[in-house]
Amino acid sequence: MDIAGKPYRTIWFEGEGLVKIINQLALPHRFEILELRCFSDALRAIGDMQVRGAGLIGATAAWGMYLAVLEAGEPFGENLARAAETLKALRPTAGNLAWATDRMFKSLSLAVPGERRERARLEAQAISDEDAECCRRIGLHGLGIIEKIAESRETVNVLTHCNAGALAFVDHGSALSPVYTAAERGIKVHVWVDETRPRNQGASLTAWELGQQGIDHDLIADNAGGHLMQHGMVDLVITGADRVTRRGDAANKIGTYLKALAARDNGVPFYVAFPSSSFDFTMEDGLKEIPIEERDSAELRYVWGKNAAGEIEAVQVCPDGSPARNWGFDVTPAPCITALITERGICGPSPEGIRSLYPEQF
Amino acid sequence: MDIAGKPYRTIWFEGEGLVKIINQLALPHRFEILELRCFSDALRAIGDMQVRGAGLIGATAAWGMYLAVLEAGEPFGENLARAAETLKALRPTAGNLAWATDRMFKSLSLAVPGERRERARLEAQAISDEDAECCRRIGLHGLGIIEKIAESRETVNVLTHCNAGALAFVDHGSALSPVYTAAERGIKVHVWVDETRPRNQGASLTAWELGQQGIDHDLIADNAGGHLMQHGMVDLVITGADRVTRRGDAANKIGTYLKALAARDNGVPFYVAFPSSSFDFTMEDGLKEIPIEERDSAELRYVWGKNAAGEIEAVQVCPDGSPARNWGFDVTPAPCITALITERGICGPSPEGIRSLYPEQF
Repeated sequence: MDIAGKPYRTIWFEGEGLVKIINQLALPHRFEILELRCFSDALRAIGDMQVRGAGLIGATAAWGMYLAVLEAGEPFGENLARAAETLKALRPTAGNLAWATDRMFKSLSLAVPGERRERARLEAQAISDEDAECCRRIGLHGLGIIEKIAESRETVNVLTHCNAGALAFVDHGSALSPVYTAAERGIKVHVWVDETRPRNQGASLTAWELGQQGIDHDLIADNAGGHLMQHGMVDLVITGADRVTRRGDAANKIGTYLKALAARDNGVPFYVAFPSSSFDFTMEDGLKEIPIEERDSAELRYVWGKNAAGEIEAVQVCPDGSPARNWGFDVTPAPCITALITERGICGPSPEGIRSLYPEQF
Repeated sequence: MDIAGKPYRTIWFEGEGLVKIINQLALPHRFEILELRCFSDALRAIGDMQVRGAGLIGATAAWGMYLAVLEAGEPFGENLARAAETLKALRPTAGNLAWATDRMFKSLSLAVPGERRERARLEAQAISDEDAECCRRIGLHGLGIIEKIAESRETVNVLTHCNAGALAFVDHGSALSPVYTAAERGIKVHVWVDETRPRNQGASLTAWELGQQGIDHDLIADNAGGHLMQHGMVDLVITGADRVTRRGDAANKIGTYLKALAARDNGVPFYVAFPSSSFDFTMEDGLKEIPIEERDSAELRYVWGKNAAGEIEAVQVCPDGSPARNWGFDVTPAPCITALITERGICGPSPEGIRSLYPEQF
């Protein structure tokens, strides 16, 4: 991802015991790099949402495990297991969090003491690099879908919900990777950006990221997508996913399901793009099995933004003491999805479709 | 509607040349009464959304025409016609605006000069009183629906979008009137309040109004309703309408259509409640015929609320200069609606259903 014309990843190894991240809480108003120097820095980064997004949560967990290794005394296995459990409890819906943490634990728990640090660094780096590479390939697979639509339209209108761009992964993004790839190939793409209440990841992150890459876009209310689809103003929807079951039910940011319903009602194709690391092959029925994180209702009662003085401030949008509830994700059932896009290719959202790309899981 | 235990309407005649309104821009943080002393005060009240909501826009237009009569010199008919056109252009989607303005014009244009003021006052008062009475009756008709659900549940969970409560009418409300009536009869009702971006009428008005009436409720993101319906947490949806066609297509606050789709997908009944004055019997196909107001994108880019110092302030939630689009309404096609509730009763959202209550229009 280019930021002010310079290439960046969202997380990177800077040197022994030092990992750096882009602080997403400061965006879009300030571009800020934060240092992770200890395990608790990584916990805070994920818990406070300095980093967020399927792949980036996974990569940060991997680097968190690396930092945990540097701190873990004996009994090493027990201490590392405790670190892994602490990490995994932070964001219950996020499939990549458990996946990356478990992969790190598996790789490390049997390592001989003298090799732990190096193995942890290499494994976390591998998880980061694979995440970026998977996203790059998702862009290539998704490109074909956009190219096909571009044959009959001057501009291809994509709607996306939340941020599943480069900021949600180590690089490139999942939902936005096909958009970037298409734009590189000279296809005119315009993105409708759902603001994505309550945390406004669309308004603060997707709009910023698209602006940095020079992609034509418009911010809209989450409420607007149905109207746009009714009037032929959306050619396809692409969202990311936080966890996808073996039959293709996809948990993603709350409100994704409503867009999928509108797409189906208006004959607009609805794609879910994600790296294989977001699959949870242990689950079948997403509605029944995927745990949905309920977050602090203050996220709904207060809106953070830049005031007239240029300072970041929260304003309260409801009556004092107003009761509120705040679920972070919903599940889009497989029948509402046109196809899944992963680094392995495009497949139908069904056990048969998924088996065709992931035979080893069936 | 009770406010701090004292009964209020949203608009009332205070004395010759003086109409008063509750300033809805100050809610929920401050309860403030404003005076309308001239036609331009009424224009500002509607245009700046000091008043909003189907019935209240109509009543304010009626009182605006009353104030216009006090100011209109000769040629009276021409001047009044100009006032009417100015009013009607303020909010293109609002059916009641044109309806009330036309009714006032028709009543006044042929009045003899000495009777104009009195006739204008009486007609505006009649429009106000009828609006409140229609809403009261909507509550009685809707009560039966809630009573039926209450037979098999301890608490009836209603989801509503935007504000179609007492604040949107002269009194009682449309969507919320059945809720108030049910609560008066001792039925336990809980309301899921969509915050209703971008202007947050749910967070700022519906939550406040329900709190004042002591109705159990929770504020939720507009994105959350689908998830709640998937998990059986919504027994029925009731929304208002800004204009309804003769076949039952209903324009209402942007995002209503998405909730109707989720309701249909989950077998949750979806009701649209409105006084007959919101019908537009000249229109058939709501998607093609109802004009949809596009509003200033600043409504999306800035969020107004109360800061830590207790002052009302706007914060910017997207990058500087971010492009945005802001449509105010969408159309829910009749097949997505379970039934319409008006002061005449409950009917199916179809020409046949509507004809059964409005034979004179067919």
